[in-house]
Amino acid sequence: MSEKHLKKGDALPPYNGKLRLFAMRFCPYAERSILVLNAKKLQYDLVHIDLDNKPEWIYSFNPKGTVPILEYEEGKAIFDSSIINAYLDEKYPDPPLQSSEPLQRAQDKIVVELLSSAHSAYYTAAFNAQALTSDSIETYHRGLEVLQKEVESRGTTFLGGDKPGLVDYTIWPFLERFLSLPQLGKPEFAISVDKYAALLKYMESVKNDPPIKAYTLAPETHAKYTESRVKGTPDNNMLDTSDVCCFRPRKKKE
Amino acid sequence: MSEKHLKKGDALPPYNGKLRLFAMRFCPYAERSILVLNAKKLQYDLVHIDLDNKPEWIYSFNPKGTVPILEYEEGKAIFDSSIINAYLDEKYPDPPLQSSEPLQRAQDKIVVELLSSAHSAYYTAAFNAQALTSDSIETYHRGLEVLQKEVESRGTTFLGGDKPGLVDYTIWPFLERFLSLPQLGKPEFAISVDKYAALLKYMESVKNDPPIKAYTLAPETHAKYTESRVKGTPDNNMLDTSDVCCFRPRKKKE
Repeated sequence: MSEKHLKKGDALPPYNGKLRLFAMRFCPYAERSILVLNAKKLQYDLVHIDLDNKPEWIYSFNPKGTVPILEYEEGKAIFDSSIINAYLDEKYPDPPLQSSEPLQRAQDKIVVELLSSAHSAYYTAAFNAQALTSDSIETYHRGLEVLQKEVESRGTTFLGGDKPGLVDYTIWPFLERFLSLPQLGKPEFAISVDKYAALLKYMESVKNDPPIKAYTLAPETHAKYTESRVKGTPDNNMLDTSDVCCFRPRKKKE
Repeated sequence: MSEKHLKKGDALPPYNGKLRLFAMRFCPYAERSILVLNAKKLQYDLVHIDLDNKPEWIYSFNPKGTVPILEYEEGKAIFDSSIINAYLDEKYPDPPLQSSEPLQRAQDKIVVELLSSAHSAYYTAAFNAQALTSDSIETYHRGLEVLQKEVESRGTTFLGGDKPGLVDYTIWPFLERFLSLPQLGKPEFAISVDKYAALLKYMESVKNDPPIKAYTLAPETHAKYTESRVKGTPDNNMLDTSDVCCFRPRKKKE
């Protein structure tokens, strides 16, 4: 197990349990899987990867070299956050994070899909601001408006009902990062209370869900990391990653 | 119901049944859903859309304006081929098109994901040949090699077992189109028998599955359509689309 982000030349830590997640502390996709692992109170080891300078062995788990990767048995892995999370929910059904209704499951995936157009606007604003156009800003707000309407029409605390579901855990890592944009000098990406009251109320509830609360970072922290990355010196190890996953009994094992 | 591709200004045909798919005859994503609808012998209506000149009402079904779209109840729709197909398989489980094992389902999705890198190489080769690089060709063949290894390691006629499954229906529309590349003057994209014997044997079995056989087009036809599109005059209506879906009892309804 490693606290720091492993890089080219670093050895693969010895396999130490049933599940192991390869992640990167600031990756929203990896976060999706960590939230689901935590929501299900699964025990797992976490290995952080330096995505700019990847250890060679990462490709033996995922030919694409992306995170998250879930090693479910020594040397055997699946990857892609949506594939991993569907697998976790099906394999470890307690608590179930998806509706038992096929149509509701489809509609949850559509919410994720519709918000994904806002992701690229976020990435442009955060990491490539000179490429920003009014179209990006419109796309971003259109995504938020769709989400707010969905929150309102469902009339439940979370999209998943009275508890967060897979849909909430899937979209949260991006919502969390969206909040850092005004601090990165992009006030036009603010989620303002006059326009997004229902969405902000939803986000407040999500943020206080224990698995999320334990892993979420403040907008200032995301902004600080983003700035380091934009400068070309990503500060992957700026956090003490030894205690961020409160549901993982790591201290006992170490 | 419409045989021709509907365009801006055309009226939405009256709703005429339980399921209605909005598609485009040459769209590989729409084809994925048509194959699943046919494999399940579901009755459905088909509405073809001119994607270069879309009817306004398409956005009321899908704000992204893409196909396929499945109208499951009048005015109510879901979209995205993977969302539609998972929904169809869950809602209409006869025959089931996915494994009952969560891990196998995840591995099937990974096959789709790994082949998807070959899709963009295909699109570049077919529609934007001047942007083609040796990297595109490598990516394409790497995707095919991964698929061939998967076919070999599973040791079954289809990836889904002794019958095609969701994974086979999801990748086929692209494999079918890959075969047109040599006819488009791209011999470096050929799926040659000396390198891909196992893959070609698999593809031959897939092509003869009745739902696929009824909908698949010859490489020459794909090449002809592609050429029309590259010239800027896509010949969407080049086929008589009234009899391509053999499992749909359309003639009786008309």
